[in-house]
Amino acid sequence: MFTKGEKLYEGKAKIIYETLEDKGYLVYFKDTLTAGNGVKKAEVLGKGEINNQISSFIFQYLKDKGIENHYITTISAREMLVEKVEIIPLEVVVRNVATGSICRRLGIKEKKVFSNPLVEFYYKNDALGDPLICPNHIELLELASNSVVEEIKGTALKINNLLTELFEGIGIILVDFKLEFGIDKDKKVILADEISPDTCRLWDMEKGISLDKDLFRKGEGDVLVGYTEVLNRLKGRI
Amino acid sequence: MFTKGEKLYEGKAKIIYETLEDKGYLVYFKDTLTAGNGVKKAEVLGKGEINNQISSFIFQYLKDKGIENHYITTISAREMLVEKVEIIPLEVVVRNVATGSICRRLGIKEKKVFSNPLVEFYYKNDALGDPLICPNHIELLELASNSVVEEIKGTALKINNLLTELFEGIGIILVDFKLEFGIDKDKKVILADEISPDTCRLWDMEKGISLDKDLFRKGEGDVLVGYTEVLNRLKGRI
Ligand SMILES: Nc1ncnc2c1ncn2[C@@H]1O[C@H](COP(=O)(O)OP(=O)(O)O)[C@@H](O)[C@H]1O
Ligand SMILES: Nc1ncnc2c1ncn2[C@@H]1O[C@H](COP(=O)(O)OP(=O)(O)O)[C@@H](O)[C@H]1O
Ligand SMILES: [Mg+2]
Ligand SMILES: [Mg+2]
Repeated sequence: MFTKGEKLYEGKAKIIYETLEDKGYLVYFKDTLTAGNGVKKAEVLGKGEINNQISSFIFQYLKDKGIENHYITTISAREMLVEKVEIIPLEVVVRNVATGSICRRLGIKEKKVFSNPLVEFYYKNDALGDPLICPNHIELLELASNSVVEEIKGTALKINNLLTELFEGIGIILVDFKLEFGIDKDKKVILADEISPDTCRLWDMEKGISLDKDLFRKGEGDVLVGYTEVLNRLKGRI
Repeated sequence: MFTKGEKLYEGKAKIIYETLEDKGYLVYFKDTLTAGNGVKKAEVLGKGEINNQISSFIFQYLKDKGIENHYITTISAREMLVEKVEIIPLEVVVRNVATGSICRRLGIKEKKVFSNPLVEFYYKNDALGDPLICPNHIELLELASNSVVEEIKGTALKINNLLTELFEGIGIILVDFKLEFGIDKDKKVILADEISPDTCRLWDMEKGISLDKDLFRKGEGDVLVGYTEVLNRLKGRI
């Protein structure tokens, strides 16, 4: 048993609560959807419930495949229980296909398929606009040691293989996604935060359309329809 | 003997000519000074002559210390003869002290002294605004192989040690600088382009003032006075 405790942190998409029994944190998924570091913002009724279910499903799937992560259990429509971690302030992005910011930054053609997945690190710092950083900047800023960076890179690539396969099986191309890692009570580096259409680019294999936050970023269609499609296909798989 | 041939390329600060005897390229140093990727621009009468002399001095110094580079000889007040290379489109930046863009990008305090020098790579591409890239982006864009990136990094750090010592000896702190490398006729990676107050940050040890392009970027004083001071101190050393 556990009881919702004090609100610790309210972010753009989630709220983190303590539990009175000190069992872990409670993650509450909000309906708020933001893009461009919070510049574009909307309430999408029901999004929080869908992302809680998708994240829960994916964390459980990854756990079953041997990827340690903070997920303990899903406790309500919008809430999951997770292990407390100290988040490493890095957004770890894995890209299989070029789209979005990387095309603009580096002049890469949209939809170019990378022969090897690319792992990028961004400094998780809203005030600075989450700038791209390289491993030596991470060391310089003392965000993580070199060996932790290497470990995270390896785990991110494993996760990419597992999720690419998972989504392929339900007719979806995993284009790119963002991960966060944290240090748990045993000083282990584990996967945390969320994995949902808010944090992944997911393209329908047949129609080529987005089923993710790009629907909102680009105003291309009904966000909820895309997200629900992803959830239903994942559920259909069980 | 050699004769100035066809103009091959006119950049922001220099013009590259062929030589009729096919002995190498002739680099002509212009008086044009630009900052912010060409946004700020001025003609500084005599700058080209000073930068030719400073670059010539530094390339010869580095050659004497075992750093292979494109410098052959100085042939006039504004011209040096160099080996032809195929420039690798990377701006290799070495930083000893934090200032400028890195402070804005990463929230680092101005004038923070790094315990280890930082080597950064920027994609030399004016249309994209020379964006920061990491080693795996360099591989992805096929700008250079991983082993060439490692070799460049090692050479850049050696050059940093040599130049830090050189400037220390004349009362100047080498804050940061930009290098370019190219592939020569024997497929060797050698140092090229220029090393001058246009491409270095140089602080007078006693007065703490800039003796480099920051005088122009920030409108802080007479550019020519700073550049001439650097040249005179280097000459005084001989
Ligand atoms: N297991 C965990 N322990 C502690 N913090 C976590 C955990 N999982 C995620 N977080 C953090 O909680 C916050 C989640 O809220 P979110 O709305 O995504 O925030 P943000 O706007 O900072 O992205 C993030 O800062 C995330 O790093
Ligand atoms: N040895 C060399 N062989 C061929 N190209 C060179 C050599 N040294 C420098 N260059 C190139 O010549 C140009 C020098 O002109 P510059 O005015 O600095 O150009 P930019 O505006 O592109 O920086 C640069 O593009 C530089 O990379
Ligand atoms: Mg978040
Ligand atoms: Mg140049």
